[in-house]
Amino acid sequence: MKKRKFNIGPKLKIIPLGGLEQIGMNMTAFCYEDSIFVVDCGLAFPTEDMFGIDCVIPDITYLLENRDKVKGLVITHGHEDHIGAIPYVLQQINMPIFATRLTMGLIEHKLEEHGLKDMVKRKVVSFGQTVSLGKFSVEFIKTNHSIVDAAALAIYSPAGIVVHTGDFKVDYTPVYGDSIDLPRFAEIGRKGVLALMCDSTNAERSGFTPSERTLRPIFDGIFRDHEKNRLIFATFASNVDRVRQIINSAHEFGRKVVIEGRSMVNVINTALDLDYIQIPDGILIDVGELKNYPPEKTVIITTGSQGESMAALSRMAEKTHKKLVIGPGDVVIFSSHPIPGNEKAVTKVINQLLMNGADVIFQDTHVSGHACGEEIKLIYTLVRPKYAIPVHGEYKHLKAHAKLAEEVGVPKENIFLIESGDVLEIDNEEARVAGKVQTGDVFVDGLGIGDVGNTVIRDRQRLSEDGILVAIICIEPDSGQVVSGPDIISRGFVYIREAEEIVEEAKQVAQDVLDNALSTEKSEWIRLKNSIKEALGEYVWRKTRRRPMILPVIMEVSI
Amino acid sequence: MKKRKFNIGPKLKIIPLGGLEQIGMNMTAFCYEDSIFVVDCGLAFPTEDMFGIDCVIPDITYLLENRDKVKGLVITHGHEDHIGAIPYVLQQINMPIFATRLTMGLIEHKLEEHGLKDMVKRKVVSFGQTVSLGKFSVEFIKTNHSIVDAAALAIYSPAGIVVHTGDFKVDYTPVYGDSIDLPRFAEIGRKGVLALMCDSTNAERSGFTPSERTLRPIFDGIFRDHEKNRLIFATFASNVDRVRQIINSAHEFGRKVVIEGRSMVNVINTALDLDYIQIPDGILIDVGELKNYPPEKTVIITTGSQGESMAALSRMAEKTHKKLVIGPGDVVIFSSHPIPGNEKAVTKVINQLLMNGADVIFQDTHVSGHACGEEIKLIYTLVRPKYAIPVHGEYKHLKAHAKLAEEVGVPKENIFLIESGDVLEIDNEEARVAGKVQTGDVFVDGLGIGDVGNTVIRDRQRLSEDGILVAIICIEPDSGQVVSGPDIISRGFVYIREAEEIVEEAKQVAQDVLDNALSTEKSEWIRLKNSIKEALGEYVWRKTRRRPMILPVIMEVSI
Repeated sequence: MKKRKFNIGPKLKIIPLGGLEQIGMNMTAFCYEDSIFVVDCGLAFPTEDMFGIDCVIPDITYLLENRDKVKGLVITHGHEDHIGAIPYVLQQINMPIFATRLTMGLIEHKLEEHGLKDMVKRKVVSFGQTVSLGKFSVEFIKTNHSIVDAAALAIYSPAGIVVHTGDFKVDYTPVYGDSIDLPRFAEIGRKGVLALMCDSTNAERSGFTPSERTLRPIFDGIFRDHEKNRLIFATFASNVDRVRQIINSAHEFGRKVVIEGRSMVNVINTALDLDYIQIPDGILIDVGELKNYPPEKTVIITTGSQGESMAALSRMAEKTHKKLVIGPGDVVIFSSHPIPGNEKAVTKVINQLLMNGADVIFQDTHVSGHACGEEIKLIYTLVRPKYAIPVHGEYKHLKAHAKLAEEVGVPKENIFLIESGDVLEIDNEEARVAGKVQTGDVFVDGLGIGDVGNTVIRDRQRLSEDGILVAIICIEPDSGQVVSGPDIISRGFVYIREAEEIVEEAKQVAQDVLDNALSTEKSEWIRLKNSIKEALGEYVWRKTRRRPMILPVIMEVSI
Repeated sequence: MKKRKFNIGPKLKIIPLGGLEQIGMNMTAFCYEDSIFVVDCGLAFPTEDMFGIDCVIPDITYLLENRDKVKGLVITHGHEDHIGAIPYVLQQINMPIFATRLTMGLIEHKLEEHGLKDMVKRKVVSFGQTVSLGKFSVEFIKTNHSIVDAAALAIYSPAGIVVHTGDFKVDYTPVYGDSIDLPRFAEIGRKGVLALMCDSTNAERSGFTPSERTLRPIFDGIFRDHEKNRLIFATFASNVDRVRQIINSAHEFGRKVVIEGRSMVNVINTALDLDYIQIPDGILIDVGELKNYPPEKTVIITTGSQGESMAALSRMAEKTHKKLVIGPGDVVIFSSHPIPGNEKAVTKVINQLLMNGADVIFQDTHVSGHACGEEIKLIYTLVRPKYAIPVHGEYKHLKAHAKLAEEVGVPKENIFLIESGDVLEIDNEEARVAGKVQTGDVFVDGLGIGDVGNTVIRDRQRLSEDGILVAIICIEPDSGQVVSGPDIISRGFVYIREAEEIVEEAKQVAQDVLDNALSTEKSEWIRLKNSIKEALGEYVWRKTRRRPMILPVIMEVSI
């Protein structure tokens, strides 16, 4: 008989509900006995095969099934891939939210939009503060990231301490506030850390991510070199520090600033309300006031750096923006890097801007918000975890991260590349994936959460490729007599006015099916519809090499 | 009265019919008096907003309107963006084709597939040879590119000489055949060149593109470092030299080679038939023979380096390939660079391969086939054209190219960034855009060329986002009596079984419209349909915040 190892006492369970093997949809449940709490609640943007979907959120079946144990939601920072699913998830399971001040400001804006603000308990947490969540307590630790007020978490459980970095970088000279609290990471490391869950996004890149502050002299240089031009800076709406630096340069060079694009205006207003950004008096002007200043005395800071077709920059480039057009004399600075998948859209906007006669600058005007290899190694060296659980990134990032962890001494068998839904059971004795919970993509489409599933998406894909052809027949059920039709209507298949021949022939094909049918009695209708579908499909393929969806309809007409 | 300049004698007209401000669909007409000839005849791959389209070809209305003047089609090289539209264009206007040997081999394969081979005159041209096309004669000049047998053209017209580089790079040490014929460029330059039309693809990059040959030691290194692994190289199907180099490395290290992927097999077979590639006896094996060799003694060369979901590599990664699976112990080398827009698809395949346990190498294993800044300047310096007409590239590339041309001494006013459809009239006195001809995207969808226009595409887009809702009513036209319906059928909107409530309510909405109609006589049917469409649209939006296409149908039932 094999020796079996009995575990004394319960283990900590770490269950990612989203965010692994993908960018976005970050959400992780921590469970110990009767206590569950959740870190982050992000959305993912739909991939191009998710036709018509607005956004994607995690499947929270596991939380719903353990509803009574769920103590709260802890948020690391205010990016959409960490807070975007909150309104949709909180509709399904209400729980108190814990976050730092600016992060909470952004969350509240979302809750308000969805009419949920009064319903949800919220607690603003300061760095260094610890909150209790059942058997857990969670300490917020200051980090640096491309949005202010980002936090790492020290998660204290009876099974040991887990450090979760959130998205972070090491910025020794941040533009606003303090540098990442490395001493605290070291202190916690000294206590003994069970596991480190660390950001993998830039794990493939060696070295250090430069400080946000390194951009200021570059921006100043751009202002100096273009004193005859209007400047348009495109950047991420949520990067308050970036906007701050551009405003500071503008101020130094005596220019007025317009902030354009709904999401950027929202974030900056929240940051102003909460005193996270100070803007010198009189420097911000409204877009309508631009005409009162010579162009070379103005700067526009705008959304759309990812080439989003509806964002302000694209509209200015396409000349569909109501108040602003970009043309000769303008210089557009992309203070951003294309997120994978957006390269073509960004290039399209750049081409459009150049065709309009503007100049475009897109090199050396951005720094990442994520830690590179050396920073990740630094965190490992301070925290010295027993187990490494790389998080935040696609599989290739997690894999690169695992290599770094090994390099700094984490034994290979203590590194866990887990996937969403894995139940990682962990204590000081051992760690292992002990089970699997239901996870997956839940589609949000309009007001519907999860009501659009794979069948609907497949239909949309089919419709998008070759359209639809509807064949309608009216039958009197008692006699089985065809009293009208077959009629053929199509959309997205061929331009009907140019293809009358196809429609006429298709009618005949359907008619032939009816003529050859032994009976058109009601009991035969399903079979009849299938025969029509098959015959029309075959005819259309032969004639056009296309496969529209074919929808045969029999209307029952009682006379 | 302003002085007007009269031109003595006719001018040369250069009319790009595609390929400017875009990648792909290269086609340019050269016209002088009664002679027109065409350079290249490429397709473009559909962008993601071209729902269901197979490929895009240029609008050749201009050629059709001048059918009797068209003397022939000259092809620079065998890439799809230069030959892909041939079968579709030749169906509309037949003309003789002139190309080098391998290029013609690839064209013939296409013509055969479309049953056009017997119908089209073809002439294989050698480098240095000149062909007559009415008032023009065209000399083929050897260049280097990522496909063998690429040619530049010296176009001799009564108005002067135009040099067209095609897609090219300068490779002093090509793997097969000669280096680009720089002396001939110099000789022609000495005769005096009116205009240079030069490749812009890499104009944004400084320096020189490395020689194809630089990859061989890298490949050898990979073989040396992975003597225990099966190797899988993914590269472009048409890059015969790349395949040759991999085979040579494999041969040196005593491995057998499988070539996988239909398009690569086609190209290599054509190259073998025409003796463009020599493969040592016994090194190529069939995929079925792999089992006879240890994995570390085999190499697979495959298509799919762009992450194309149907290509061999993706299928091997997704485990849907019938004969091959990639897993632990395999090393996959991407000998390619993602074409803009394919980044995400490539990353997806890389992640999948890593998850399967394979290792992936994708750095320093590819060189470009296009000239960088210094090479472009070299060509200008040899050819010394009066006018510069940057070609092949998006607007940003043309713009970067224009800057290079200026740097090497072409006066700014002699550089023409023209767009598709521009008629550039040119002689030794002056050059100017003197008019515009019809151009544009012609969609190929199945057997249809141009029958899918914007209306159909818009419908497909709408259908792809929110599906369709069909409302059917049967009316007896004489009495105006509704004899059946309203019935509601939907596809791609909501999963009907879960949304019976919506269907029932929608029926009621349509019924209400009927109840409130003053008349249901035939003369009112159009109005009735519009009212139903509006009422259902409003109901659905309120209920779901979606906008499916709404298709009201009235069936006429005569009893």
